[in-house]
Amino acid sequence: MNFEIKYKDALGRIGKLKTPHGTVETPALMPVIHPGKQTIDVKKYGADMVITNAYIIYKNEELKNKAMENGIHNLINFDGPIVTDSGSFQLSVYGDIDVDNSEIIEFQENIGTDIGTSLDIPTPPYVKRERAERELQITLERAEEAINVRGNLMLNSVIQGSTFPDLRAKCAQVIGKMDFEVYPIGAVVPLLENYRYMDVLDIVMASVGNLPPSRPRHLMGAGHPMVFAFAVATGCDLYDSAAYILYAQDDRFMMPDGTYKLENLFHMPCSCEICANYTPDDLRGMKKEDRMKLIAAHNLNISFAEIRKIKQAIIDGNLLELVENRCRSHPYLLDALRGLKKYKNILEEYDPAYKKSAFFYSGPESLNRPEIYRHMKGLKKLPKKDKLVLLPAFKKPYSKNIENILLNNPEMENIHDLVGEMYKIHNLEINNPVLDESTQIAVVDYPFGIIPLEIDEVYPMAQNEAPSCLDEDSKKFIRDTINEYKDNFNEIIISERVIKKFDLDYKFKKSEESLKINLDDLNKIEYIADYQFGEGSGKALFNGKINVIKSKKTGKIRHIHDGDSLIATIRASDGIFVLSMEGARRLHNYLQYPKNRVVVNTDAEPFAKKGKSIFAKFVIDCDINIRANEEVLIVNEKDELLAFGKSLLNGREIMDFNVGQAVKTRKGGK
Amino acid sequence: MNFEIKYKDALGRIGKLKTPHGTVETPALMPVIHPGKQTIDVKKYGADMVITNAYIIYKNEELKNKAMENGIHNLINFDGPIVTDSGSFQLSVYGDIDVDNSEIIEFQENIGTDIGTSLDIPTPPYVKRERAERELQITLERAEEAINVRGNLMLNSVIQGSTFPDLRAKCAQVIGKMDFEVYPIGAVVPLLENYRYMDVLDIVMASVGNLPPSRPRHLMGAGHPMVFAFAVATGCDLYDSAAYILYAQDDRFMMPDGTYKLENLFHMPCSCEICANYTPDDLRGMKKEDRMKLIAAHNLNISFAEIRKIKQAIIDGNLLELVENRCRSHPYLLDALRGLKKYKNILEEYDPAYKKSAFFYSGPESLNRPEIYRHMKGLKKLPKKDKLVLLPAFKKPYSKNIENILLNNPEMENIHDLVGEMYKIHNLEINNPVLDESTQIAVVDYPFGIIPLEIDEVYPMAQNEAPSCLDEDSKKFIRDTINEYKDNFNEIIISERVIKKFDLDYKFKKSEESLKINLDDLNKIEYIADYQFGEGSGKALFNGKINVIKSKKTGKIRHIHDGDSLIATIRASDGIFVLSMEGARRLHNYLQYPKNRVVVNTDAEPFAKKGKSIFAKFVIDCDINIRANEEVLIVNEKDELLAFGKSLLNGREIMDFNVGQAVKTRKGGK
Repeated sequence: MNFEIKYKDALGRIGKLKTPHGTVETPALMPVIHPGKQTIDVKKYGADMVITNAYIIYKNEELKNKAMENGIHNLINFDGPIVTDSGSFQLSVYGDIDVDNSEIIEFQENIGTDIGTSLDIPTPPYVKRERAERELQITLERAEEAINVRGNLMLNSVIQGSTFPDLRAKCAQVIGKMDFEVYPIGAVVPLLENYRYMDVLDIVMASVGNLPPSRPRHLMGAGHPMVFAFAVATGCDLYDSAAYILYAQDDRFMMPDGTYKLENLFHMPCSCEICANYTPDDLRGMKKEDRMKLIAAHNLNISFAEIRKIKQAIIDGNLLELVENRCRSHPYLLDALRGLKKYKNILEEYDPAYKKSAFFYSGPESLNRPEIYRHMKGLKKLPKKDKLVLLPAFKKPYSKNIENILLNNPEMENIHDLVGEMYKIHNLEINNPVLDESTQIAVVDYPFGIIPLEIDEVYPMAQNEAPSCLDEDSKKFIRDTINEYKDNFNEIIISERVIKKFDLDYKFKKSEESLKINLDDLNKIEYIADYQFGEGSGKALFNGKINVIKSKKTGKIRHIHDGDSLIATIRASDGIFVLSMEGARRLHNYLQYPKNRVVVNTDAEPFAKKGKSIFAKFVIDCDINIRANEEVLIVNEKDELLAFGKSLLNGREIMDFNVGQAVKTRKGGK
Repeated sequence: MNFEIKYKDALGRIGKLKTPHGTVETPALMPVIHPGKQTIDVKKYGADMVITNAYIIYKNEELKNKAMENGIHNLINFDGPIVTDSGSFQLSVYGDIDVDNSEIIEFQENIGTDIGTSLDIPTPPYVKRERAERELQITLERAEEAINVRGNLMLNSVIQGSTFPDLRAKCAQVIGKMDFEVYPIGAVVPLLENYRYMDVLDIVMASVGNLPPSRPRHLMGAGHPMVFAFAVATGCDLYDSAAYILYAQDDRFMMPDGTYKLENLFHMPCSCEICANYTPDDLRGMKKEDRMKLIAAHNLNISFAEIRKIKQAIIDGNLLELVENRCRSHPYLLDALRGLKKYKNILEEYDPAYKKSAFFYSGPESLNRPEIYRHMKGLKKLPKKDKLVLLPAFKKPYSKNIENILLNNPEMENIHDLVGEMYKIHNLEINNPVLDESTQIAVVDYPFGIIPLEIDEVYPMAQNEAPSCLDEDSKKFIRDTINEYKDNFNEIIISERVIKKFDLDYKFKKSEESLKINLDDLNKIEYIADYQFGEGSGKALFNGKINVIKSKKTGKIRHIHDGDSLIATIRASDGIFVLSMEGARRLHNYLQYPKNRVVVNTDAEPFAKKGKSIFAKFVIDCDINIRANEEVLIVNEKDELLAFGKSLLNGREIMDFNVGQAVKTRKGGK
């Protein structure tokens, strides 16, 4: 296996792809090189890997001889990894080519290509299903043939299936089981050219969702920086760009938010060397060939800058913020962004559970982010209560500020003074007018909906920002959330400020309860544990008797001991538990196998015990529901606890990869 | 007067500001130059004008002598326009300074400053009203003194008033009447630093809305490219940046979507020369001083690129699309964007009526754009009808596509087959079951709400794109629009597809009418004329008898004659009328003075008749409701028609400016 993951965000990843001519960091953009005609040195603009066309070389006697003699790296004068396409593009344009699959694979192997391609059939969008099925059959047969024909050549095998997501899915499943190194997603260019981004999304998700996560995917023909962020966030790792030169020939400047035509430009729109040093008039006054080179340079500058910016966003954990920004550049791209809602399951599965960045709300589309969906699921893990009290939001963290306000205003008799009148949903009966242990107090705020006060400092409930001017989707989201959540309780009491702010339309009656807020440390840490590790984990970890050490500076809970024994620490940056060995033991006792486990083979056992990180190849089983950046238990085949640590991948990735780290071990066992 | 407008969009403008050391194009960013300490040559990054501090020079014996002897341009080695601040900043930081207003103004004049500043009191945000009023009084007195003291020195006079919009407005009104060349908006830095963009918006709008449009405004201390687009769109022309160097000293990279700290960078986030040629590790490995210069260079590169991009957006007419994009970078900036809704009147007034670009919907905030608000007002100019039929939207242009569908599907008996069942709003009585001249047929689509079929090719009803996935704000906007518009009719018939798509919640009953669509050319052109020039204009222009010439290629109406006489032409790009002289005469006869008029003095009369453009200084009166890019009538003092043409400014600007063109004349009279 030639690929490993270094950082993750949404479905995007920064990976390392190993090839005979070096290792390339993904997401990567491969400029298309025309063999024999290339005049621009793409390496100088940041290209680590390029793509060229083996069929063109094969068909040209002179190029063919040179390539056979001196190798392709010599032919196109590039010493990094070279990917070659097989002639499928020519097939899609001219309908027929005169080479067969095994010939072109052998040829690619002979000329020293790093990653070759089998001769798939690029079925166009919107064809009749019968044709798509028939051509897919041939593509699958050729894929199998390719595997048999190749020697050491790394191979692309292209996902086809036209605009039928189920055919794309089938193709991905079948060839995903074969031993290819890269999976391109093919025949999307006509869709990209016509702004059919929603169809591209459906194709990408059908493909990515059915491919092994351990191989890079190449969105073939996607070369415009407008789509890079979105495509990366949906799991595409490789891009090729002939666009940089084609657009330049047509006097067009690519930008991450669209395209400018030179004829319309009064001012250069970007910060690159070309845009900073030339005016549109300078360019218009030049010879076509000179101008073309400069515009191509701009196109490469901006494209590689966008790839760098995307990588930085993955590391920072704000890739989806970048995507939401980029998708404003065209309404159809915004449409596709809104379409992500359909895929929230898979997005949540691959998205890391904890990130460096705060959550920034940028519009209704942010309501589809994995963090929110995950929180909705997290709420179900909390202890069941009888009564729910919903308060309006104050400054974050909510509990602290509510306490502060009450503390600094001793004249406030109770919570009424703070939040206005309280109302009950009318058709629920009032059983118990006094707040007690059977009452859940929560704040209503967007974009996270309902936030029980106990977990209001857990990421990202305290680490998010949203505009104070609400949009209608947010109001509806809150109404839907309350509507769904309220059925877990026998009685709901709601502040009038919540009712008004979110236009709640239940029948209410005024409540006479005297509400007092009394947040208990034990309660709080049990809730956090349940939210983080699952229902009942809090009781299992802390046994009801704790010794809490708080930060002198912030007053926040830091360490929780049982007597002298440290059980867990709350990480200040994101409010979640990092376990001690004793904590890990207690959790391991409580949670049923395979919950929260990563199981390593006997070879790895001594390393795990010493606190060495766990490599994916040593993992023989794991909880498939693990998300990246979670606290996990490391066990052996007998489910004996060896160590614990932070998952770097999700469950499915841990199982699929056999290269790279899977878990960063925190502390060895004894 | 030293300022004229070249292009407009929203409240933004590209202007030319004349100074003793040359003319500068606005929006312009002025890097702050430290006199004596500057090491970076800002000119090479695109600075045409700089700002420095006269008080610092005044207080330093050596600098003072040099400046008095050789002039400030020599002192700071910059041959373009130099703006000097007066020490107000020091006053705001240290509370007291030892120079008085007239001294510092004289000093600025003596050292050859291009634009000096009077010594205002920079009242901080959120102070008590009493203090803000007291300090404002001093600021106003000093402004008056400054006018009296100065010789030929161009002068800034700063708008103060803390966070009280009414005080800012008062200040703008008072000093706006005095003869200052530039109006800075002061003391907003603490707000910008704390992301209080909504407060900044309120201050800017209170200031800009009460300042004469003919002078440039300087948003003092706004130097981060994040806010440039938004500030330009709300009417700010000048910016100063000490940030480029302050951020660099702190290892921070400014970007139009935020700030990166070097310590967190794995990849350089931009396309500029620095980001393309260095890695974060390269920079981290350098000496502080070397690194600082490179980061400052990046900060200048990205800042000037943003200014260029904004200028291009103004020319293209898509500045608000850029603003909506940029405001996603921080939720509080998004909040301010949402706050623009409060200012839709003034935004619409200054926004050109017709633009080059299509309208791109980028989210609920786009519903506040002037084009939509203007359309809602335009609907009121249309002929009153008895009955309203609301159809669902088809591909644009709607009327053409409905006609095509019906034409190509002869089996369709009537509109029911196309749009599903039709329903009436229940509580309205059915008077007349047959479609006739008293029926208005319109399409319901977002973001423009209700589009009568007759005007569906008028800009921007055919020139807009929105995602097919609706957000809740758009649904609500449609419901509100229908709710408001329906009262103009006795009877409303609505397609079930409209009811479902936008969740209409009236009580409906099924309608039995047989609906047929029959679009009549005369009807259509009368509607367009009414929509463009006001109620009754269509009848006045075309007299009910017309001879229509259509494009052979598109089938669209091009020219309308009465017999042999051309009345008007419909411009293909935006579907509005360009008049002939005969058309102008008819419109002039019909519309009451001053409607649609620009009145020129006798000096300009012969030039107007010859078809020369009208300069603002010759205009003695005009219809204050004129928008930029409208078709207007040019008359003399006796209201005799001289010519007609396209307004380049709005009514208020035409009256206020005495430099530059006001109307581009289309054709002289006879």
